[in-house]
Amino acid sequence: MSAELVLGLDVGGTSTRAVLTDLAGHELGRYRAEGGNPHLHGPAEAAARIGSVVREVLAGRDPARVAACVIGLAGYRTLGEETSGFAERCRAAAGLAVPVTLCHDAEVAFAAGTEESSGVVLIAGTGAVACRIEDGRVAATAGGHGWLLGDEGSGFWLGREAARHALKGTGGLAEAVRAELGADILRAVYAEPKRLATLAPLVSGHAEAGDPAAGEIVDRAVGHLAALVREAAASKEAGASKGAVVFAGSVALTPGPVRRGLEAALPGARPAGDIPLAAARIAAGSVSENPGRP
Amino acid sequence: MSAELVLGLDVGGTSTRAVLTDLAGHELGRYRAEGGNPHLHGPAEAAARIGSVVREVLAGRDPARVAACVIGLAGYRTLGEETSGFAERCRAAAGLAVPVTLCHDAEVAFAAGTEESSGVVLIAGTGAVACRIEDGRVAATAGGHGWLLGDEGSGFWLGREAARHALKGTGGLAEAVRAELGADILRAVYAEPKRLATLAPLVSGHAEAGDPAAGEIVDRAVGHLAALVREAAASKEAGASKGAVVFAGSVALTPGPVRRGLEAALPGARPAGDIPLAAARIAAGSVSENPGRP
Repeated sequence: MSAELVLGLDVGGTSTRAVLTDLAGHELGRYRAEGGNPHLHGPAEAAARIGSVVREVLAGRDPARVAACVIGLAGYRTLGEETSGFAERCRAAAGLAVPVTLCHDAEVAFAAGTEESSGVVLIAGTGAVACRIEDGRVAATAGGHGWLLGDEGSGFWLGREAARHALKGTGGLAEAVRAELGADILRAVYAEPKRLATLAPLVSGHAEAGDPAAGEIVDRAVGHLAALVREAAASKEAGASKGAVVFAGSVALTPGPVRRGLEAALPGARPAGDIPLAAARIAAGSVSENPGRP
Repeated sequence: MSAELVLGLDVGGTSTRAVLTDLAGHELGRYRAEGGNPHLHGPAEAAARIGSVVREVLAGRDPARVAACVIGLAGYRTLGEETSGFAERCRAAAGLAVPVTLCHDAEVAFAAGTEESSGVVLIAGTGAVACRIEDGRVAATAGGHGWLLGDEGSGFWLGREAARHALKGTGGLAEAVRAELGADILRAVYAEPKRLATLAPLVSGHAEAGDPAAGEIVDRAVGHLAALVREAAASKEAGASKGAVVFAGSVALTPGPVRRGLEAALPGARPAGDIPLAAARIAAGSVSENPGRP
């Protein structure tokens, strides 16, 4: 039996998405499950979750038929020396015969938005980071220091600004935050800081409805995110071409005022398309580059 | 035996200071111990600590000789309905015959800086809050929302800005932060966010030595703190006199660039002097206003 299937995964903190294709990149299956980030869930649990997703998307097909598997992993950068060990854990949990290739989620997101090999990708979800991509690989990053030290413009930041506004403001957004968190905003937030990120859609919704406080927060978020892109781009050597700008992540991709603001602030920037499919196509490309593989 | 002693306490998160005076406000004893904030330590433990401090400063004198006890309490504002219960816990733990009077730490700090009864007091320590004082009582506050939602210019904020600088900067301050937190700054900070406040003296020290990055952080801190004072002052009805401006807290009071910056940004502002002594004098004043008391 020939190994004629490839797998692409997009593994984040809150969701894992997998796509199965043939070697030409045609989709054969798709599966989505909860997150499998090794930093959030621990490497053993994360690998087990990823293995489970692989078996689900294979839907009974023999794992030995998989010729390549590429995983775009949120938090890849900070995995450090544990990278190869985690890749092996994933391979074993999935029952694959071939090694699993882990890569920076930004590399896959960039490939999901453009055919070009260099440029900048912005990932704005719960956190916010921009990466300069050279020849398909991350060459520099801006932001991405997490909710305590950075991530301005991220979902967490949007929610934090909404809570700060509600502490002294009035109007629709302030009332919506109090309805969500209760009257004692400080107690609710300090009991569970990461809950702030869940307020981000409130900000976008109220900005869309014309709430001036929400609109001002969205404008500042867009300014921060565009600045991240410029910072990542500026880290490039002078004289190189600018390349494509791709944006990804729930905050950037969800239709609404943040996305429109990014499109206005970054002319020519394009949304990342199907990220797990892009991972699968990278996997397929790695097979065709290695025709001697079984 | 007549009740001719009074007690004043300044109870914070990291230290509790007590002063014993006679009814004329002359100091008879002084004691300092670790913090007794009920939010940080729980009300039972906090009251036990405060009781222990009272016994230490009395140094064997009969608690029945105490005519009044005033405690300026960090976190008083958020004690809410638990205030009277906590005051009674403190009284019982201290073995006093008279009730303990809890008040906002800002009121005592203001009294420790001026003879006036109205104005604004800034407390900049680990956190940052400014309060407008009218007739000795807090009438409005600005800031004070804690490390996650506010406290710009505070010790926590100074440390966070230093860590953010060290993540991408070079030079003296960046090296000092790495020496303190280790090479993996993100790991150190996320493991213990409150550790950031301990970096504040590094920022002041490097600013004093001419480090431009540290100087820029100090300048922004001073701007934030002065803005808090203006925000608290602006909450006052138009036409009222401006009153005194008093500053307190370790970040504002420690000699160095932040303190000098505040003195330049807030002409006429004066440092809070002896806060527990001011509490004792408020206690003495309450006795002389009630001459019929035993």
